[in-house]
Amino acid sequence: MAYNLLKGKKGIIFGALNDASIAWKVAEKAHEEGAEIVLTNTPMALRMGELDKLAEKINAKIIPADASNVEDLENLLKESMAHFGGQIDFILHSIGMSLNVRKKRPYDDLNYDYMMKTLDISAISFHKLLQSARKLDAIVEWGSVVALTYIAAQRTFYGYNEMAEAKSMLESIARSFGYIYGRDKKIRVNTISQSPTLTTAGQGIKGLTDLLDFSERMSPLGNASAEDCADYCTVMFSDLTRKVTMQNLFNDGGFSNVGMSWRAMNVYSTSLDDLKSNINKIID
Amino acid sequence: MAYNLLKGKKGIIFGALNDASIAWKVAEKAHEEGAEIVLTNTPMALRMGELDKLAEKINAKIIPADASNVEDLENLLKESMAHFGGQIDFILHSIGMSLNVRKKRPYDDLNYDYMMKTLDISAISFHKLLQSARKLDAIVEWGSVVALTYIAAQRTFYGYNEMAEAKSMLESIARSFGYIYGRDKKIRVNTISQSPTLTTAGQGIKGLTDLLDFSERMSPLGNASAEDCADYCTVMFSDLTRKVTMQNLFNDGGFSNVGMSWRAMNVYSTSLDDLKSNINKIID
Amino acid sequence: MAYNLLKGKKGIIFGALNDASIAWKVAEKAHEEGAEIVLTNTPMALRMGELDKLAEKINAKIIPADASNVEDLENLLKESMAHFGGQIDFILHSIGMSLNVRKKRPYDDLNYDYMMKTLDISAISFHKLLQSARKLDAIVEWGSVVALTYIAAQRTFYGYNEMAEAKSMLESIARSFGYIYGRDKKIRVNTISQSPTLTTAGQGIKGLTDLLDFSERMSPLGNASAEDCADYCTVMFSDLTRKVTMQNLFNDGGFSNVGMSWRAMNVYSTSLDDLKSNINKIID
Amino acid sequence: MAYNLLKGKKGIIFGALNDASIAWKVAEKAHEEGAEIVLTNTPMALRMGELDKLAEKINAKIIPADASNVEDLENLLKESMAHFGGQIDFILHSIGMSLNVRKKRPYDDLNYDYMMKTLDISAISFHKLLQSARKLDAIVEWGSVVALTYIAAQRTFYGYNEMAEAKSMLESIARSFGYIYGRDKKIRVNTISQSPTLTTAGQGIKGLTDLLDFSERMSPLGNASAEDCADYCTVMFSDLTRKVTMQNLFNDGGFSNVGMSWRAMNVYSTSLDDLKSNINKIID
Repeated sequence: MAYNLLKGKKGIIFGALNDASIAWKVAEKAHEEGAEIVLTNTPMALRMGELDKLAEKINAKIIPADASNVEDLENLLKESMAHFGGQIDFILHSIGMSLNVRKKRPYDDLNYDYMMKTLDISAISFHKLLQSARKLDAIVEWGSVVALTYIAAQRTFYGYNEMAEAKSMLESIARSFGYIYGRDKKIRVNTISQSPTLTTAGQGIKGLTDLLDFSERMSPLGNASAEDCADYCTVMFSDLTRKVTMQNLFNDGGFSNVGMSWRAMNVYSTSLDDLKSNINKIID
Repeated sequence: MAYNLLKGKKGIIFGALNDASIAWKVAEKAHEEGAEIVLTNTPMALRMGELDKLAEKINAKIIPADASNVEDLENLLKESMAHFGGQIDFILHSIGMSLNVRKKRPYDDLNYDYMMKTLDISAISFHKLLQSARKLDAIVEWGSVVALTYIAAQRTFYGYNEMAEAKSMLESIARSFGYIYGRDKKIRVNTISQSPTLTTAGQGIKGLTDLLDFSERMSPLGNASAEDCADYCTVMFSDLTRKVTMQNLFNDGGFSNVGMSWRAMNVYSTSLDDLKSNINKIID
Repeated sequence: MAYNLLKGKKGIIFGALNDASIAWKVAEKAHEEGAEIVLTNTPMALRMGELDKLAEKINAKIIPADASNVEDLENLLKESMAHFGGQIDFILHSIGMSLNVRKKRPYDDLNYDYMMKTLDISAISFHKLLQSARKLDAIVEWGSVVALTYIAAQRTFYGYNEMAEAKSMLESIARSFGYIYGRDKKIRVNTISQSPTLTTAGQGIKGLTDLLDFSERMSPLGNASAEDCADYCTVMFSDLTRKVTMQNLFNDGGFSNVGMSWRAMNVYSTSLDDLKSNINKIID
Repeated sequence: MAYNLLKGKKGIIFGALNDASIAWKVAEKAHEEGAEIVLTNTPMALRMGELDKLAEKINAKIIPADASNVEDLENLLKESMAHFGGQIDFILHSIGMSLNVRKKRPYDDLNYDYMMKTLDISAISFHKLLQSARKLDAIVEWGSVVALTYIAAQRTFYGYNEMAEAKSMLESIARSFGYIYGRDKKIRVNTISQSPTLTTAGQGIKGLTDLLDFSERMSPLGNASAEDCADYCTVMFSDLTRKVTMQNLFNDGGFSNVGMSWRAMNVYSTSLDDLKSNINKIID
């Protein structure tokens, strides 16, 4: 069901790769709600992914850009404005990558060159985007910028590694730049902290599927899906949330505010009982 | 501009008194977005206020209820369901009153009978509402309940008095009941933490207008108005925020995440300079 | 090992029942560190518990008081000052009781008279204590007041019931009164949010022991014990934390900032694997 | 007054320059409490500052190290262990520097090479220190590591610039590494979020002195001084806070939990009244 929430609005969506990407769903939803879209990703991701299909489906233009490269970002913003014939209404930043995770370096054996690259791609890219947009006056007054993040910015999840720092920094940039952009241009900047979501890359990794199960049972409404996230992004891009800025908004079925749920504890307790009965057998 | 975000939905709005009330604006906006509304308030408030006008304007039914009285709440829910011909989709709780503030008792000279009454009206009423709704199965699956709160639940504002405790408790109830209602019925419960808003009662109180000025200059987007709050409530009642629950959502122009703004500091510094130059004159 | 951290200081300790009580350990530790102590509890608790033994051991005076009764509190403070020959340096509030939990009323079937009593005993008692102390000018400048709390004030733990609201309110009182008492008398007010701790009452309850196990494996340093809490209280009563006020301090082995630990996930995953293999067997 | 809280303990203190440095006060206090100290700073800071005086006074060894250089850190840790004849008990990280601030680049015109350098010096250095210590097994079980931070990691303070991101990242590292170091070696890692403190560099900057005044009047106990911070660090290095880890601890006179104080509002209101009366004059 569509409401025309974004009718006449123009937006740039970073980070869609294939139809498992959250950014993909956001683009589809924004289009459905009446927006015109520019899609962007790195040249490499454009080769690997299926962005052409999406572009065709929602009649979007693709403009390649490496989000850690200021020139690329400036070019993207200029071309988008030329394409749209005016300023941009909303932007989604859905970019994150950890080199140390890829290279299987644990958190107490980080390579610092990798870490710098991780920060640059996953967090500083957001500052570069905002700074470029501001210099080019690329975003309309009362426009809206959203970046996707994860609760590991607040609490430690084993295995999430240096992405915790990247996401902490990303959320800090949303606050710091949100202050300036709000004060000077009425533009709001927020992050949406999304349930863990299985993308193509994540399927089959046992640690990940088990964490998803835990997260699902901890959350009274279950994990939020990519489609749920697209709905929430739409709302944040719309004119109905104009005074919401510098916030980190959890779209997670309640996970962030649950210490222990009955459903998750049931699974946990079953194991405990087994452990104890085994110990008792050994003792007997 | 209307989007039909609440088309076909039925809601109960607590706490509208006159057109300066946030609840009033929420009712108007929800109606505009396609919802059918039941308005409710205490019999006394109904006599003092102008709810009839609103009811007529948006074609709503008025059902009196004292929100601290379980029987009243049960009656309200039953009558509403009879009126709507089915379950309720959303509820707004916009109720708060401090007896100690009214009686001018400072925070270090509280009357505890008053405090009990304050908690009952301002916070426990929310639990009573939710518990009654759950027992009567009055809210539809994926329904949405919102209560209005203030940042004094997190940080101390001089003069806000025992309402800080009432709002802390209110937000806790949103989490505790949100967990149960989400798990069992997929119903979400959230609070919106709104900028200070001048209602009829507040106009002319110097402390309040000065605080509003400070809040306005601290917030990069300025204070959120009652209309802004109505927009945000609409979004939270809609199907686009289905996985958001147990959250406290700031609708405050950024205030909550600003430690010190340039605009507020300018006012503050001017005073400081005056103070210092006066001291210097005296010393001279 | 003792450091004389509280040499010459005088304190009141609420809530010790027997040697499994945190308050008991705090009293012992404070004595060890050089403090003179007044112990207090309700007349009923004094009959049921073993406070006499503790009083004898640490040479403390016992003064009965129902913490929800202002007259009792005033009498306690006056008698304590008479006993000490002067003002009080520190106070521990370790009081909590839920009538609805005792009466096995679940959170969606609360009795509101019970709830009022729960709030009065577990949270408002803290305000009554602070207000009485302030009126009697019972606490010395730069004195220190601590109340014990639990992380359920921030996140929902199934089964913790209305104590979540009581603890939220307690922490709010610490902020609100801490502001006033700090500004006017330099007295600091804080809460310590402690790991779940098995007292006599809790032993043998399966839900509780399983939660403790989860909490232990989530916390990198393991759960904090009653003795650990006594150490932290000592530090907060000492002159080395004079500018720390209005804070909620986690003494929990790190639990509050862990989203998922490797040790807890291992237990959880074992169950999951069993569940899945059972399902597969049935399918086969 | 000394308590021998750190008797027999050995610690490394980063970041002392002269007697206005917090690290200087921490070193003095730790020595007073019985600890042996190694002082460290960059070669340049050693030339500019007066660390020799402190070293002599507290009988400490100075070992130069650039905290962003892993080799330097490894050398520092090895030499310290050789000097102490064993593992280290505690470490203070008091390091922060923003190149963009120095070069007067505002937050919406950052130089990204500078930003990388800022992050490396102010935040990643903390990870490098912890990782090096862990690889060399340099810290004793139940040892304690503290880094100094500022509330700009949570809320935006105009002019604090990219240091907000650096401090957010620093606090995230404390959580992430605190989890690992706690689980594996029982070592705790915390940050202390200190009131703004005037060091030599900050004196005379009008923006800073005015912010300090605001902070002072907002905080019920006033700003925490460098000496207050030294007291708190001592407590965190001692055996009395063994289960406290991954926390960000505010040592700020209550500032972090005050939304608006009576004393700050009085200053603010004076200006407002002046502004209004001037406007009225103009209108008249």
